[in-house]
Amino acid sequence: MPAKFIFTNILGVFVFNENYKLVDGLLFKDLDQFDEKEKHEKQIEEKHGSLEKPSGDDLYKILEFFKDKKYLSELRKKNIALTRVSVKDSVNNDLLIIQTIDAVEELNRTINLLTKRLREWYSLYNPEVSNKVKDHEKFVSSIVQKKKDKLLEELNIDKNDSLGAELKEKDVAAILLLASQINNHYKLRSHYEKYLQELEKETCPNLASILGVTISARLLDHSGSLKRLAEMPASTLQILGAEKALFRHLKNKRNPPPKYGMIHEHPLILNAPRKNHGRIARALADKASIAVRVDYFKGEFMGDKLRKDLEKKIKNLR
Amino acid sequence: MPAKFIFTNILGVFVFNENYKLVDGLLFKDLDQFDEKEKHEKQIEEKHGSLEKPSGDDLYKILEFFKDKKYLSELRKKNIALTRVSVKDSVNNDLLIIQTIDAVEELNRTINLLTKRLREWYSLYNPEVSNKVKDHEKFVSSIVQKKKDKLLEELNIDKNDSLGAELKEKDVAAILLLASQINNHYKLRSHYEKYLQELEKETCPNLASILGVTISARLLDHSGSLKRLAEMPASTLQILGAEKALFRHLKNKRNPPPKYGMIHEHPLILNAPRKNHGRIARALADKASIAVRVDYFKGEFMGDKLRKDLEKKIKNLR
Repeated sequence: MPAKFIFTNILGVFVFNENYKLVDGLLFKDLDQFDEKEKHEKQIEEKHGSLEKPSGDDLYKILEFFKDKKYLSELRKKNIALTRVSVKDSVNNDLLIIQTIDAVEELNRTINLLTKRLREWYSLYNPEVSNKVKDHEKFVSSIVQKKKDKLLEELNIDKNDSLGAELKEKDVAAILLLASQINNHYKLRSHYEKYLQELEKETCPNLASILGVTISARLLDHSGSLKRLAEMPASTLQILGAEKALFRHLKNKRNPPPKYGMIHEHPLILNAPRKNHGRIARALADKASIAVRVDYFKGEFMGDKLRKDLEKKIKNLR
Repeated sequence: MPAKFIFTNILGVFVFNENYKLVDGLLFKDLDQFDEKEKHEKQIEEKHGSLEKPSGDDLYKILEFFKDKKYLSELRKKNIALTRVSVKDSVNNDLLIIQTIDAVEELNRTINLLTKRLREWYSLYNPEVSNKVKDHEKFVSSIVQKKKDKLLEELNIDKNDSLGAELKEKDVAAILLLASQINNHYKLRSHYEKYLQELEKETCPNLASILGVTISARLLDHSGSLKRLAEMPASTLQILGAEKALFRHLKNKRNPPPKYGMIHEHPLILNAPRKNHGRIARALADKASIAVRVDYFKGEFMGDKLRKDLEKKIKNLR
């Protein structure tokens, strides 16, 4: 009986006659061969003349054929291998950016927790410095670098006026160990910010040039991937991160819809007069939406042009 | 008119006649002289014969005398100096222990946060290790010390079977930086545990030998000072940290009273059969209560004896 059907799966290309008996075939040696299955199918079709792909009942019967133990275990093994490869390949820069920005946020959280603790502890020794230096990062780095007397001198406080206790050297050392640990956190965070910059230069240079490294990463984190972010309309991108306010609005129309989400952190918005925030957010989201699509489809870099347009638009606003 | 009243404040010792006029006096030069005020009062009394301390209306009139500008500003200045000294002196080992245990707890919290983040991130690269090594500390230190291949080998996993992605070197480096930061947290924590041990050896050696360094520090933290802890009855010490359960019980008698608070973490309780937990907690709290009083009144070390008694008692329980 002449060959009728051609059927390809991960094991190989199989040719069946109309009674669903195997008449010819080619077993793939590895996944690379499977990737070139079209080529192999063509070779076989040239040999047998026109063959059809089974469907409906025919397909069902042919699949029965692979229930045979010999094929089934092989099929399972090869499928696992295939899955493994695609799991591996699914790790791309998007995921790395998301993990990195998550780590940065976690570092921010722990820096805050530990610095509050440090301030309380250090205040036993030198309360004046903790009171005067409000900025956490500055506080931590200055007590790591300078001794108590020097710090008091810089603040113009007579060291005899200090309300801090005289601690033993090892007690001070214990406090400063915590401080230098927090200092390392700050260093790590700025390292990650640089690393994010590199990653985004490859993955989403346009988006990063419009929104900045951190906001871009947060948007990616929030949407889950560059693909999903590129598929969003600009209006969604604009309010990403303000879901709570949005649903409050949808539930009860008396609440106004949110005008901006995460992009509100952008300096162009923060530095503008309050009444313009909404309009700038919309303009920003428009450009960002264009940028992320260009990035997703690997278009050329046009971040500078987009940014120039944006700045011109904002200048005309007031 | 003969001298009648003697009155001492931080400025000096003053002698007044019955019309509240100053007849004699001695000004203190510094706070050290004020500390020896009894001696100076005695000298003046010897000179004038018996003098009485003013009270009621007399005291009021004499205080009027110090409303004079000359005294008032001096009084204020010296009082500030005195306060400064007592603020400084109030920093004792109790406070350092409390700050240190607070820092340890904060480190525990941040270690947990950061390790969860690290596991997620590292799983992109090497999910098998994160799945197999459940203990956080072991996980962190092993990925800091060993390369992926080596780790997989130790777990008997063929490295071709790993589902982890092939990351670039700089991507792996970014992950490992977080790991080594967490590793430093662990090191800092164990340093603080040693430091706590030293502090408690001076402050509360008996308590520490009964309850262990960490539980002792937590009790101190919870009660606020060694003094307050020493003043507590053993039954309070027993349930310290279980306030919620206690008040639930007091509000509604159907809820049983708590049998133990923080001391439940003690190995003697944890390793005992459940039915004995309450009784061991009581015995432990009894001994701890004795220990903390000995510590507070700077008695001799008797922790070994107390612990031996305790262990005997517990052995007889079952």
